[in-house]
Amino acid sequence: MAPKQVNIAIIGTGGVGSVFVSQLAWLSKNSPSTRLSLCYIAMIDKALYHQDYSEINIDTAVSTLESTGSPPPKLSEIVEYLACAPHKVVLVDNTSASSLAEAYPEFLKRGISVITPNKKAFSGSYELWQDIFSSAKSGGSMVFHESSVGAGMPIISTIKELVQTGDDVTRIEGVFSGTMSFLFNSFAPTSGSGGKWSDNVKKAKELGFTEPDPRDDLNGLDVARKLTILGRLAGLPIESPSSFPVQSLIPDELKDVANGDEFLSKLHDYDNQMEAQKIAAQKEGKVIRFVGSIEMATKEVKVGLERFDPMHPIATLKGSDNIISFYTKRYGDMPLTIRGAGAGGDVTAMGVTGDLLKILAQLR
Amino acid sequence: MAPKQVNIAIIGTGGVGSVFVSQLAWLSKNSPSTRLSLCYIAMIDKALYHQDYSEINIDTAVSTLESTGSPPPKLSEIVEYLACAPHKVVLVDNTSASSLAEAYPEFLKRGISVITPNKKAFSGSYELWQDIFSSAKSGGSMVFHESSVGAGMPIISTIKELVQTGDDVTRIEGVFSGTMSFLFNSFAPTSGSGGKWSDNVKKAKELGFTEPDPRDDLNGLDVARKLTILGRLAGLPIESPSSFPVQSLIPDELKDVANGDEFLSKLHDYDNQMEAQKIAAQKEGKVIRFVGSIEMATKEVKVGLERFDPMHPIATLKGSDNIISFYTKRYGDMPLTIRGAGAGGDVTAMGVTGDLLKILAQLR
Repeated sequence: MAPKQVNIAIIGTGGVGSVFVSQLAWLSKNSPSTRLSLCYIAMIDKALYHQDYSEINIDTAVSTLESTGSPPPKLSEIVEYLACAPHKVVLVDNTSASSLAEAYPEFLKRGISVITPNKKAFSGSYELWQDIFSSAKSGGSMVFHESSVGAGMPIISTIKELVQTGDDVTRIEGVFSGTMSFLFNSFAPTSGSGGKWSDNVKKAKELGFTEPDPRDDLNGLDVARKLTILGRLAGLPIESPSSFPVQSLIPDELKDVANGDEFLSKLHDYDNQMEAQKIAAQKEGKVIRFVGSIEMATKEVKVGLERFDPMHPIATLKGSDNIISFYTKRYGDMPLTIRGAGAGGDVTAMGVTGDLLKILAQLR
Repeated sequence: MAPKQVNIAIIGTGGVGSVFVSQLAWLSKNSPSTRLSLCYIAMIDKALYHQDYSEINIDTAVSTLESTGSPPPKLSEIVEYLACAPHKVVLVDNTSASSLAEAYPEFLKRGISVITPNKKAFSGSYELWQDIFSSAKSGGSMVFHESSVGAGMPIISTIKELVQTGDDVTRIEGVFSGTMSFLFNSFAPTSGSGGKWSDNVKKAKELGFTEPDPRDDLNGLDVARKLTILGRLAGLPIESPSSFPVQSLIPDELKDVANGDEFLSKLHDYDNQMEAQKIAAQKEGKVIRFVGSIEMATKEVKVGLERFDPMHPIATLKGSDNIISFYTKRYGDMPLTIRGAGAGGDVTAMGVTGDLLKILAQLR
């Protein structure tokens, strides 16, 4: 049997994108039943492709793109180019761009499958969410986004399978942010003192666990986006990540300071706010953690600080690990829990590569 | 588009099988894109099928089988019958029979896909393992067995994806038996006394957490079978579950007593053996747990008692939960860990139903 051929298009060659390209190179050498033919690769200001769809060498794609890429075409032109490719096409969006996310329906309608770690499309408006899945249906294409929650861990696939096999998800709870995990595991450890809040934030930034401006982590929006995705997959028509309570850990007075450096230099003036939360929990024999939760029966979705017994799996989390628990009718009182790295180029790219394998298995 | 049609054959209508049939009934009403046509259902001494493959009503299949079933045909006749079915066929083996497991290659070669929670085929001889996967390849059929390890939890799919995306699994460790989990969580709790070993075994049996003869759990073979499967998926050509060290918790003197009742009545005479293990661990500030582990670098596979710090996720396990950790190159020092119910009809059947969904998505 001649190997199946699939055209691959990649947008984004940053932390996740560049690792994905190397995993794709590995896969193309280790997946003899499918020929993976790269026909488009682009970064923010450059694109590499040929009008005759001739194959781009995956091993050298990123360096060739950097040295010989031309300004990228408009999105509508990319759709048109890929829709006319000789084989089925998988578009890999390794950016975090909203503009590209909003164009997924255009690609999907034209039969172009999409895989991505980009949360934007699935945590944007509910209308876009519906549009994405109806477009995939009408276009006979597929869309997978395992790495949009928990990076390469099997979170999206698990909740989908619970729902599709007829289980009732009753509650979802977890630590969805590697940054928040690291901050509270060190600030409020199950034993010993955790030091000052602002010192922990500074340390997290130094170690590369925060965004350039730590407020982009502390505002809780990243967690809210992930909960939006899981809630929708569980069956709740959540309108947007701002349609439920999200606790921000940014002091009101520092919301509008000019940049991350100024924020960090002033944060210690507000350490007493977080310290008070930690001490109040300690008086109950508990520790604080920044969690997201969904109660399906009451449709209550929330993000913020909660108190946990020191032996609770959420309290004993280590490093920057994520933990996500699914409470369901079939699993009863003891949830199905998945724990591990929820961020990082290697594991995020692996989730995308795993999605590609699912598509390859299903493509006709 | 006319719905795709698939023929389903089910063997086994016990604890898992009967729940699977009800999940299949739910699926057939909630999966409009595929028509699931049941053409064969059998239990140990009865079978129900029609020579013209006319559809068996799923809702009433088990009761009709019980009331009107005839003696089952020979395995070779079942293969022939299913190979000539009008649509693609998925055989669901919900038994724990070796005889059926050994016949998988015959089904797979004829294009009949197999899904099963039955560990026997995948933990039998390495020759059978190879025969199963080469038969599926030559027959253009598929074989899935998610529930053979950890019931409905995504264990098999996760290790497959780790391997297929090019990660290096370095170590697998976990509590793979609900019975052993319950026994040690209660006998050697992280705080408080756990009472006598024999009392815990009796309690576990009363609660239905053991096989009719508890020696079938205490011999460690169930865990050895699961490790054999995971080790093979990770790339080790493990010859059989008896080709590596497996610690049995059956006192030598009770190996050959006539039955489970006699075993239980005499077990208290040997409580000092397990008590000594527990106390030795306590002196190190640790607790004992019955775990299985695979070290990929040294190819060391073993099953038996190990000591854990009371804060270790394996030590803090509750009830009869399983926990399985994958250490890999990409995940680094902190493993990807999955925890939850690893036994029970509902969650085991769900793993089988999930496998069916994977096949339906991939069938051409």
